[in-house]
Amino acid sequence: MGFVGGGEGSFIALAHRQAAALDGRFDLVCGAFSRDSLNNQRTGNALGLAPQRVYGDWREMIEAEARLPEDQRMQLLVNVTPNHLHAPVAQRAIQAGFHVFSEKPAALNLAELQALDQTLLGSDRLYGLAHVYLGYPMVWEARELVRNGLIGAVRKVIVEYPQGWLSQDIASQGNKQADWRDDPQRSGIGGCIGDIGTHAFSLAEFVADQQVYCLSAMLGSHVEGRQLDDDVSVLIKMSGGASGVLIASQVCAGEENPLKIRVYGELGGLEWRQEEPSSLIHRSLDQPMRILRSGLGQPWLSDAATRRMRLPAGHPEGYLEAMANLYVDFADAIQAGGAGNQVPGVPGMDIGLRGMAFIEAALINHRGDAKWTELICPSSSRSIAQ
Amino acid sequence: MGFVGGGEGSFIALAHRQAAALDGRFDLVCGAFSRDSLNNQRTGNALGLAPQRVYGDWREMIEAEARLPEDQRMQLLVNVTPNHLHAPVAQRAIQAGFHVFSEKPAALNLAELQALDQTLLGSDRLYGLAHVYLGYPMVWEARELVRNGLIGAVRKVIVEYPQGWLSQDIASQGNKQADWRDDPQRSGIGGCIGDIGTHAFSLAEFVADQQVYCLSAMLGSHVEGRQLDDDVSVLIKMSGGASGVLIASQVCAGEENPLKIRVYGELGGLEWRQEEPSSLIHRSLDQPMRILRSGLGQPWLSDAATRRMRLPAGHPEGYLEAMANLYVDFADAIQAGGAGNQVPGVPGMDIGLRGMAFIEAALINHRGDAKWTELICPSSSRSIAQ
Amino acid sequence: MGFVGGGEGSFIALAHRQAAALDGRFDLVCGAFSRDSLNNQRTGNALGLAPQRVYGDWREMIEAEARLPEDQRMQLLVNVTPNHLHAPVAQRAIQAGFHVFSEKPAALNLAELQALDQTLLGSDRLYGLAHVYLGYPMVWEARELVRNGLIGAVRKVIVEYPQGWLSQDIASQGNKQADWRDDPQRSGIGGCIGDIGTHAFSLAEFVADQQVYCLSAMLGSHVEGRQLDDDVSVLIKMSGGASGVLIASQVCAGEENPLKIRVYGELGGLEWRQEEPSSLIHRSLDQPMRILRSGLGQPWLSDAATRRMRLPAGHPEGYLEAMANLYVDFADAIQAGGAGNQVPGVPGMDIGLRGMAFIEAALINHRGDAKWTELICPSSSRSIAQ
Amino acid sequence: MGFVGGGEGSFIALAHRQAAALDGRFDLVCGAFSRDSLNNQRTGNALGLAPQRVYGDWREMIEAEARLPEDQRMQLLVNVTPNHLHAPVAQRAIQAGFHVFSEKPAALNLAELQALDQTLLGSDRLYGLAHVYLGYPMVWEARELVRNGLIGAVRKVIVEYPQGWLSQDIASQGNKQADWRDDPQRSGIGGCIGDIGTHAFSLAEFVADQQVYCLSAMLGSHVEGRQLDDDVSVLIKMSGGASGVLIASQVCAGEENPLKIRVYGELGGLEWRQEEPSSLIHRSLDQPMRILRSGLGQPWLSDAATRRMRLPAGHPEGYLEAMANLYVDFADAIQAGGAGNQVPGVPGMDIGLRGMAFIEAALINHRGDAKWTELICPSSSRSIAQ
Repeated sequence: MGFVGGGEGSFIALAHRQAAALDGRFDLVCGAFSRDSLNNQRTGNALGLAPQRVYGDWREMIEAEARLPEDQRMQLLVNVTPNHLHAPVAQRAIQAGFHVFSEKPAALNLAELQALDQTLLGSDRLYGLAHVYLGYPMVWEARELVRNGLIGAVRKVIVEYPQGWLSQDIASQGNKQADWRDDPQRSGIGGCIGDIGTHAFSLAEFVADQQVYCLSAMLGSHVEGRQLDDDVSVLIKMSGGASGVLIASQVCAGEENPLKIRVYGELGGLEWRQEEPSSLIHRSLDQPMRILRSGLGQPWLSDAATRRMRLPAGHPEGYLEAMANLYVDFADAIQAGGAGNQVPGVPGMDIGLRGMAFIEAALINHRGDAKWTELICPSSSRSIAQ
Repeated sequence: MGFVGGGEGSFIALAHRQAAALDGRFDLVCGAFSRDSLNNQRTGNALGLAPQRVYGDWREMIEAEARLPEDQRMQLLVNVTPNHLHAPVAQRAIQAGFHVFSEKPAALNLAELQALDQTLLGSDRLYGLAHVYLGYPMVWEARELVRNGLIGAVRKVIVEYPQGWLSQDIASQGNKQADWRDDPQRSGIGGCIGDIGTHAFSLAEFVADQQVYCLSAMLGSHVEGRQLDDDVSVLIKMSGGASGVLIASQVCAGEENPLKIRVYGELGGLEWRQEEPSSLIHRSLDQPMRILRSGLGQPWLSDAATRRMRLPAGHPEGYLEAMANLYVDFADAIQAGGAGNQVPGVPGMDIGLRGMAFIEAALINHRGDAKWTELICPSSSRSIAQ
Repeated sequence: MGFVGGGEGSFIALAHRQAAALDGRFDLVCGAFSRDSLNNQRTGNALGLAPQRVYGDWREMIEAEARLPEDQRMQLLVNVTPNHLHAPVAQRAIQAGFHVFSEKPAALNLAELQALDQTLLGSDRLYGLAHVYLGYPMVWEARELVRNGLIGAVRKVIVEYPQGWLSQDIASQGNKQADWRDDPQRSGIGGCIGDIGTHAFSLAEFVADQQVYCLSAMLGSHVEGRQLDDDVSVLIKMSGGASGVLIASQVCAGEENPLKIRVYGELGGLEWRQEEPSSLIHRSLDQPMRILRSGLGQPWLSDAATRRMRLPAGHPEGYLEAMANLYVDFADAIQAGGAGNQVPGVPGMDIGLRGMAFIEAALINHRGDAKWTELICPSSSRSIAQ
Repeated sequence: MGFVGGGEGSFIALAHRQAAALDGRFDLVCGAFSRDSLNNQRTGNALGLAPQRVYGDWREMIEAEARLPEDQRMQLLVNVTPNHLHAPVAQRAIQAGFHVFSEKPAALNLAELQALDQTLLGSDRLYGLAHVYLGYPMVWEARELVRNGLIGAVRKVIVEYPQGWLSQDIASQGNKQADWRDDPQRSGIGGCIGDIGTHAFSLAEFVADQQVYCLSAMLGSHVEGRQLDDDVSVLIKMSGGASGVLIASQVCAGEENPLKIRVYGELGGLEWRQEEPSSLIHRSLDQPMRILRSGLGQPWLSDAATRRMRLPAGHPEGYLEAMANLYVDFADAIQAGGAGNQVPGVPGMDIGLRGMAFIEAALINHRGDAKWTELICPSSSRSIAQ
């Protein structure tokens, strides 16, 4: 496993490393952590890498690693750079023969991602996206219950992701996370919608087991000088007859990270909330409300959920464990060596394409006068498999 | 106090009577409870009314009561009929010299309500609407805190009212509450949007202390044979710069009555939920989250909140107490005998007009292709006062 | 209905009057509200009583009312005085032919209460105690579920009543509620244990459907100059094989009124919390956790619970409604005119005797070196009936 | 790092390995996982160990590792065996020059632990106990706040640890975890009290920052054929003037793992609950309730809490992260190479001794007639340091 990005101070890189370490399925062997060469060296040192495998540049890393004997070079490139590098790094890595696990969004825009998709399709490499929330056991349980008809045909989906950390202009105060996120060159056409709107979107499609086919969007930007959106409200219509609302915001002052989804069907509803991830609320037309807990085990929970659990009932698991579940699935897929580019259990190109199509449709709609804009996604043939 | 409507089995009439009884400010002296004369008589008997003041018809009741000496006749007509009678009964009652406390929505449509408004303006009678949720102490507290700038300029409003009781076709199975609500003749042009959407709407404007000026709406109807909407999602833009989302639904299977509002400003956010009405959550950019509880008293809570409380900290108060607060304010206003038609502290014609304008704008938008529809309200000069 | 006690500023008297008013089953006709004659008069006036029925003294009131014709005099004496008057007033009222609804504890000590019991047994009058928490629908539901074997034989009971309002010396700062509660002459031998410990005790016996037969108690007093206990922790053993813990405290700084009970049996557990009274949590060995809500109605809830509900699902009911349920049952019992002194559905002499026996046993144990003290209750033949 | 115990199916060994892996501070180099040699080999293989370092027996492992050159042998022995092996393994490992991180309780009884303590004192080795709950950031925060006087002098402590998994006789049904726990030879004199009562006990002393000096205990055993206690209720008195209640049970049917502590002082109270570990509730006499969240960071939280956090606000961390915090501190201490046997930040011999003294005092009290039994702990000179 080699890292691109993730020098000192990068939260997400640390999370990736800890998540990957949890189950010991990958060893970190190389990295190109920072364009700042001192930072780069220090990071490599701290991680115990051999100096010659701390590369000054991701292109160099890919080339050099590709020249190593197969049993010595990295197997998986983990990409934790800002958005504008997601696609270029993946492009080259796949061409050079590496599997790629990338932060989302998958690219700056749909066109760039389609090009990457072509490259991927022409290869036998695996490609995954760090939609971490799709690694939580009870998210899988919710999807299974929807698929099994527990709540009947889904009618209403309410997904919300309110954060508050961009309520003020912290980018110009030196916050690096905020800085690149508001730079269209590095972040892409969407701000909040790309950063967390895509999380809400993919969660909605995943749990409701339906696809959004059209939408009406209102985007806002609330801080002086901010270039990209920081607040998103979207009406959505879905392929299976459901409709609903998607909310994503980074100016909900005081909120931490309470990504939440509710889906309601003819017979009941399900509710999951990231800040209390081990519980799944099941409401029902004709039964008392139940709280499904991740520790219930089988037969109460599906295999999809229980195999993503580590601890006995009542021992909280969180974000790192969810991310670690993606690494476990990635390791299994590499070991299995099967055909195709999709890692079973890990969000892949399909989810990436749909996320980009969502961003584009929302921006088009937001800027226009038409009520509804169709979400046009070039491909949807390779859906996530269990 | 006399009742129109509210024969046997009417939940809302029983709630009104218990709420009015709580503080002993009104005595029930007459009623026209049901067109079914046996039901009408039985109800009157059960309530201990003199037989001659149990009227077969609301018109008869208004006329007969008006002929009684002033110190014997009812002072306040409480209107708990289905929607189509809200305006006609109020019209005649006001003309005959009675104060009116009416269930919402105030009329079948905006035109009918404007006519009533003219009548009201030409009178010295008081008119109130049973927007019960505006009687809760912590709703007033939220509004006060917004007005006092605790959370800075409001940016985002999320109000939701998900119910589940109309998830199936219970109207044709004999449920009377469901039956008239789906009949445009008795319910008006809106179904769910009129029944509970207006609650969400008035709560949003009340707490955010801003008015909605345009909206984009998606309405749905999910049950075979249902005539009116049962599910509503609306994007809203508000006069003071806020925007947000309004959700109201009666097909969120398994939900009871969790009306909830969140408002976020530059500095923090407030959250209130009807099913736990004594708590108000205050999130903040730079402080830990606080839970304001209705029992805190002054100086922690405003006078507007504390005067709507009855019990010491930790003794739950609920819906009936909220409604009783409206009756107390109505009694005070009658006693004070001041000028104007607005009862301080009680939702009045203004809120009625805005609610009807909201319904009409939402329906127009829903049926059209334009993204935004302006909410045009004929009058907004008489806002609710404390 | 006539009141003894409850002059201006008495919270509990106001609660009684509002609770009694809610269902309109009693009219207030007389009172002896305060030894302060001005306060007494003002209170009577404010409540609209005829001046001749505002009595200067409770003895006078009982005598005078007894001389009135039966259809004019009060039917029920409501006693909201400090503890030391509970038994004397009840004694005389019963002897004079009145039904009595008394605040708890029923007397200053067990001997005094046994004397009252003898008087009661010799009469045909009804006697009830305002153990308000036994009026909540979901408390009855919990008891029904235990009786029906839902959780199997009860093994463990944890009941707790932590308040914080006596964390400081507010008695000497003029708080009247705190003042008499710490005066052994007016409060009795117990402070916190009598004031709220008895609530916890009666709730535990009621829900677990077992009786405490021995206990080990630790009492504390944490404020300089305080005479009576303000903090109680008790180990209990119960007749049906359960054991557990009872906690009551008035120095749990910051707590409001979260009386809570948990009972665990062979197959599951139930949890109820007064500050969220409409929910009853059911945990189970082999099923997901369920939340029973008071709005579920039949067949999900027992008749005992549903007949104590007023509003549809999701409309919160609270403390006043729980107390009002006791008044409704009292009115029914008076109307029914049956034999015996126990009002079905209302805590009576039995619960009073057991509460006093609990206080005495706890104090004996606290002061001694023996680990266990038997709880000896003179009578337990007349248990609460539905 | 080498493991004793933790063959296939051991939850706690897997947790230790994942927790240790999270921060990459230890490499697993050897193990004696199971007396079943096939299980032992398979476990070693699965963990990628060299075959010669998978030992058939813990004595053999200690001897063989001690013979290896210092830079090759294990540094830390992790002991995840049943209770009866905790002290013997530690004894020999310390004598052979290894640091020891042991599951709790530290020994079968106090005498055995005192002997181990003597060995430890004569060495320069580090010794830690896996009281995992003392690794949670908000537990440290609670302790810091108590020490800083936020809630004033602590008066009342309520600690509870209700589990339900031993509600039935699962030991005889083949559950290995349940089996050894009920065997006095392997579990020691206490069942539930040793298994989880010691967690509750150490948490209470840690957060309240006071020591229990006497107690009154009631133990129970509720399942036919069970030898040891499964249910514990204890009244406690503490050195700094606090008193309170400790509850631990494994027959609270339906409960998972909601270890919870509340401490109340003169000015307020703190509440922490393991199943929602990122929140710490602060109640106050004269302020609204606050919820301190682990993501608040400085200056809101102490350094003791923030350095135990890994992720930004709202990204849940759980049990593994708490345990990993102990491993990080252990690694730091080994690296620092300081004097003494105590690992700063990790529960050590002191907590072990006090836990054993607690078990012994509780059993003595339970079996006797005296109300109070003193808790006599041979040493309390080396308290946990930050």
